[in-house]
Amino acid sequence: MTGGSAAPGPTMRALQITGPGRLEWREVPVPAPAVGQLLVRVAAAGVCHSDLHVLHADRQRPAPMTLGHEIAGTVAAAGDAVSPIPVGTAGVVYLCWSCGSCRECTAGRQNLCLAAGRSAMPPCPGLMGHDGGMAEYVAVPASAFVPTDIAPVQAAPLADAALTSYHAINGTREHLRPGGTAVVIGVGGLGHIAVQILRAVSPARVVAVDLAQDKLDTATRLGADVALAADDTAAETILRLTGGRGADAVFDFVGVDATAQLAVRTVAPGGAYRMVGLGGGAPGIAADGALGDAWPWGASIRKSYAGTRNDLVDSLALAASGAIRADIETFPLAEGPAVFARLERGEILGRAVLIP
Amino acid sequence: MTGGSAAPGPTMRALQITGPGRLEWREVPVPAPAVGQLLVRVAAAGVCHSDLHVLHADRQRPAPMTLGHEIAGTVAAAGDAVSPIPVGTAGVVYLCWSCGSCRECTAGRQNLCLAAGRSAMPPCPGLMGHDGGMAEYVAVPASAFVPTDIAPVQAAPLADAALTSYHAINGTREHLRPGGTAVVIGVGGLGHIAVQILRAVSPARVVAVDLAQDKLDTATRLGADVALAADDTAAETILRLTGGRGADAVFDFVGVDATAQLAVRTVAPGGAYRMVGLGGGAPGIAADGALGDAWPWGASIRKSYAGTRNDLVDSLALAASGAIRADIETFPLAEGPAVFARLERGEILGRAVLIP
Amino acid sequence: MTGGSAAPGPTMRALQITGPGRLEWREVPVPAPAVGQLLVRVAAAGVCHSDLHVLHADRQRPAPMTLGHEIAGTVAAAGDAVSPIPVGTAGVVYLCWSCGSCRECTAGRQNLCLAAGRSAMPPCPGLMGHDGGMAEYVAVPASAFVPTDIAPVQAAPLADAALTSYHAINGTREHLRPGGTAVVIGVGGLGHIAVQILRAVSPARVVAVDLAQDKLDTATRLGADVALAADDTAAETILRLTGGRGADAVFDFVGVDATAQLAVRTVAPGGAYRMVGLGGGAPGIAADGALGDAWPWGASIRKSYAGTRNDLVDSLALAASGAIRADIETFPLAEGPAVFARLERGEILGRAVLIP
Amino acid sequence: MTGGSAAPGPTMRALQITGPGRLEWREVPVPAPAVGQLLVRVAAAGVCHSDLHVLHADRQRPAPMTLGHEIAGTVAAAGDAVSPIPVGTAGVVYLCWSCGSCRECTAGRQNLCLAAGRSAMPPCPGLMGHDGGMAEYVAVPASAFVPTDIAPVQAAPLADAALTSYHAINGTREHLRPGGTAVVIGVGGLGHIAVQILRAVSPARVVAVDLAQDKLDTATRLGADVALAADDTAAETILRLTGGRGADAVFDFVGVDATAQLAVRTVAPGGAYRMVGLGGGAPGIAADGALGDAWPWGASIRKSYAGTRNDLVDSLALAASGAIRADIETFPLAEGPAVFARLERGEILGRAVLIP
Repeated sequence: MTGGSAAPGPTMRALQITGPGRLEWREVPVPAPAVGQLLVRVAAAGVCHSDLHVLHADRQRPAPMTLGHEIAGTVAAAGDAVSPIPVGTAGVVYLCWSCGSCRECTAGRQNLCLAAGRSAMPPCPGLMGHDGGMAEYVAVPASAFVPTDIAPVQAAPLADAALTSYHAINGTREHLRPGGTAVVIGVGGLGHIAVQILRAVSPARVVAVDLAQDKLDTATRLGADVALAADDTAAETILRLTGGRGADAVFDFVGVDATAQLAVRTVAPGGAYRMVGLGGGAPGIAADGALGDAWPWGASIRKSYAGTRNDLVDSLALAASGAIRADIETFPLAEGPAVFARLERGEILGRAVLIP
Repeated sequence: MTGGSAAPGPTMRALQITGPGRLEWREVPVPAPAVGQLLVRVAAAGVCHSDLHVLHADRQRPAPMTLGHEIAGTVAAAGDAVSPIPVGTAGVVYLCWSCGSCRECTAGRQNLCLAAGRSAMPPCPGLMGHDGGMAEYVAVPASAFVPTDIAPVQAAPLADAALTSYHAINGTREHLRPGGTAVVIGVGGLGHIAVQILRAVSPARVVAVDLAQDKLDTATRLGADVALAADDTAAETILRLTGGRGADAVFDFVGVDATAQLAVRTVAPGGAYRMVGLGGGAPGIAADGALGDAWPWGASIRKSYAGTRNDLVDSLALAASGAIRADIETFPLAEGPAVFARLERGEILGRAVLIP
Repeated sequence: MTGGSAAPGPTMRALQITGPGRLEWREVPVPAPAVGQLLVRVAAAGVCHSDLHVLHADRQRPAPMTLGHEIAGTVAAAGDAVSPIPVGTAGVVYLCWSCGSCRECTAGRQNLCLAAGRSAMPPCPGLMGHDGGMAEYVAVPASAFVPTDIAPVQAAPLADAALTSYHAINGTREHLRPGGTAVVIGVGGLGHIAVQILRAVSPARVVAVDLAQDKLDTATRLGADVALAADDTAAETILRLTGGRGADAVFDFVGVDATAQLAVRTVAPGGAYRMVGLGGGAPGIAADGALGDAWPWGASIRKSYAGTRNDLVDSLALAASGAIRADIETFPLAEGPAVFARLERGEILGRAVLIP
Repeated sequence: MTGGSAAPGPTMRALQITGPGRLEWREVPVPAPAVGQLLVRVAAAGVCHSDLHVLHADRQRPAPMTLGHEIAGTVAAAGDAVSPIPVGTAGVVYLCWSCGSCRECTAGRQNLCLAAGRSAMPPCPGLMGHDGGMAEYVAVPASAFVPTDIAPVQAAPLADAALTSYHAINGTREHLRPGGTAVVIGVGGLGHIAVQILRAVSPARVVAVDLAQDKLDTATRLGADVALAADDTAAETILRLTGGRGADAVFDFVGVDATAQLAVRTVAPGGAYRMVGLGGGAPGIAADGALGDAWPWGASIRKSYAGTRNDLVDSLALAASGAIRADIETFPLAEGPAVFARLERGEILGRAVLIP
């Protein structure tokens, strides 16, 4: 299933996966917006680690797929049955293309759409089932288009980096009291936004943890109260800063064994530990009464995926007010393959954004 | 630290741990209530699997300790500084003897008392730091005494079996919608109360899972909509009953590997899995994007300890209205050692209650 | 604006307002479903006091309007752009035809749709802006059609009487603890459902208040713990039943001065008072520190309109499980004018349902 | 009932009400701390409009009462049964001297203590039932003493001005989303703190409304995004700023007819209106379906009294982090009568604090 049928007509350039690990800069037809869809002229598309995951996934595809799930652009045309969004409207694309009619969708939890079954991952442009935005045009459901005046290079990364961070944080707001502590593990594309969101929506002290000093400097510049090297002493330091009790909320944007264990050792009893990064790490918790380094009573662990449509609306509002701002580097879309190679080598600071 | 000083005066009989695995029926002094304490004449004391845990714990004790943390009785005397609770008032004893002044205690989360540090287990009579209620008298903090008219043999088991079940369930009420499903794994001392609480406070369908047919019969008698044998097909059946999605809440009152895995495989995305039983089982979750049998997005895991003081007040209200009722067997307190032996052999149905 | 254009084609019979107070049984065109709409063959349509309000409203209409906002039926045809709901599917119609894309709609609060501006009442079939279901056919947005197997005569009244009651109650669930008290004022079309919902979703004691003994008998039959005549002693009795404190939640399904004052005098400090009936009554509260009969500290007053789409889904689930059931009387649709006259004379018990 | 018995011993100076409108600077005995009480040496006592209310209340008193419910000081001595708070510890006094054992108190809602009955106002030093802190010493329940390192002149006003503001705001946090709007009516002793709390705990835009330009300048200096003169156009301006919808939360720190009506006209559907100031104003709401200027659907009105003990702990944490700071003017305690006169004439800017 790809968005829109391919008419023998105008063509465009797109960055497509054509096989496991194979990324090509190809000439493809401009999609025609189907019923309920908009054709969006892409102004900017963010590059995400998830793109690398899907690029290297060992999975046969029936056809090439255009990458790109962080999309900003303007409406170029509308298919039938779209309530009037004027051509030329600027906006970003919400990435959960959920069914819209199940109990979860109608409750505003589109990222848990029932139609996606137990896997609970709705179709996503550029990742699952639809062509994405690393192209001159992309066809998107009208319901996924969220208007905004924010400059496209700033708006695009909000579609995932802010959305996903905001969702994880917003679900813990009741924990984030004055005098409390929030820990951000991993100050990368999502983490550097998370630090800013925490400052904007909560009075809690923000502790950032990372392996790299430049990431820690970024965290401090963006408002973190404490920046800690991710070494053997980090857990101890966090416990000391919190009177031995632990942090009210811990957000792990890395998700390897070391960070999962850091989270378990530093989340407070009754606190919230949210797994956002998916490095495969195991927290190693058990149903026992053991104390010490074990998982504390009443703390909750949740694996957080993307966010709701309103989480994107809220993220845009935070950006519009100046409360959050992505650190970006821009590149021409045609240089996409080289940018992906740099991302894999860890040479991108903040978020890379491709411009068609 | 034991409750009250021992004056050379009246004595009583008590069931005490005198060493690892050693339970004795001893003559000991009647405690004198200290400042802020009440002396309670015990009318009934419930027997809990936790008693076996502490009995067999391989730990040196400075002195013998009286067991018993499910205590019902009447006020026999009051120490200084107790606001007037008349002698003769009947009630049950709340088992978290927390500091009363930390941020958690003053917010009504006494079971997460800050004074207990990262271990977050406040002192508990008969388990940690204080003599319990398997005796003719016990000294308790006045703040832990909750008046009730419920008959003592019914009231005693509420102090832990209902309190702990209610706390785990009450924290998931937002998940328990009409048309939803709650799973109770293990229909023992706590589980058989949990089934009744779920019926009383929520419109969700209740699915009970146990190895033993008599436990499943009990669950059905107490209102479970579905009773499932805990075999290889249980997970599949629960998924089928819930349209492949899983249950909105899963309460594991066993906590071994098999039940933890059942919980992970059957909790819905966005659902709640609460570990109450502490059999040492590992859910084996990881920070990955794997689907199928894996831990679903948005589901939360929490290890639940005891309950708040108001959870006990609510449990008593449910019992007073007839909504919950413990299945009990009563025994003379003097037969305590034999009752413990029967409990270890799995020969107690429902809750054993000792009568001094 | 009416639902669907009128083609010179098949006709049907409909109950229409043709002027203030004028109700006619007319031959009109069968609507053609527009893009995104379904044509529903009506199986049952409930009669509501709101129908009388709109019938007697002193407002000029550009064209006759078909009444009926409690609609059950089956899909007869679909317009363009409707995701596949098979012809023949049975269901009920959700009555808030909101924009679907604003922040409130996408958060699942369709009844507070931003597109309706400060008045916050989205278009409603048979009341505002669209033809309703007192006809053989009605055109409805596909997103408003909620499938159900419940028999149409039972399902129709759920579309408003259950939806609105459930919404008011569901927003107070945190108040409805064991040992608590909920008061239902007015045991009519909504109130008799509200009593049942409270029993199903909460452990609170239910006190029903009405002027008529037959309504009180109904309340008792449906599970109310206490049934009170709405006389001068009702407030005093409720305070006595609640230890002088008042009820945790009070639902006023009447909304005249007397019931509003009863609510203010009987809601507890910190409790919830929800105005559902719109009789124009004034609670007469003020920003003062006066005690006694005054509005208590921390209590909240909210005027509750309709419900969310998921409130309807939940209501249907309650009915499917047997937890709620409307008391109904059925009539042929052609007898509509006579039924309206009976409703005005107070001669309808429970809910009247019209069958085309 | 006054705090502590008066021994024939040391005396001190205190500011006492000796009759309606009569304030005297008197020599009185130093109170002796009773069981469970601390003797606090007062370092600072804030002056509040409530003091004027109680001073002018037309009520006979059995004995003179010392005023002062915003108290900061250090522990000078402890009565029996006080868990060890060392002499010399600095702190502030929580003003709800509630029962500590009812369901509300043990849930952390001390300001709704059941023991206070339907009036729900627990005893308060300097206002109801106990001598207050406008003296050299005051006896207080140990449970009401909250340690802090904040300088006493800053800490004292937090005991009411911050506590009460924080409580009203904290209960609306779910309403305060990015892109949302909060309105503060009245930028006086409480309002100027409320502006700062809103900035610290929420991302919402803050609109301050006052009659006086210097108050509006204060609001702007403290972080308000918009400062509006309280004239005929204020409602219209707020509606314009919010797209015609209204504000998500409105806090009225004045509470006269004009401000109550402003709140009703400017709170959004589904929003929160909190009455904090008690000027006797009537919002004039009714149970009707009228639109326009009327009370919007789903909005809640609540009359907010004081705060919980943890609201004080949170307020102190905000002050300790520098997020909030009271504008104060200090005076010797002996000049109390003159300060009260100035307060009545509206000549105090921010908060007056008396120093013994």
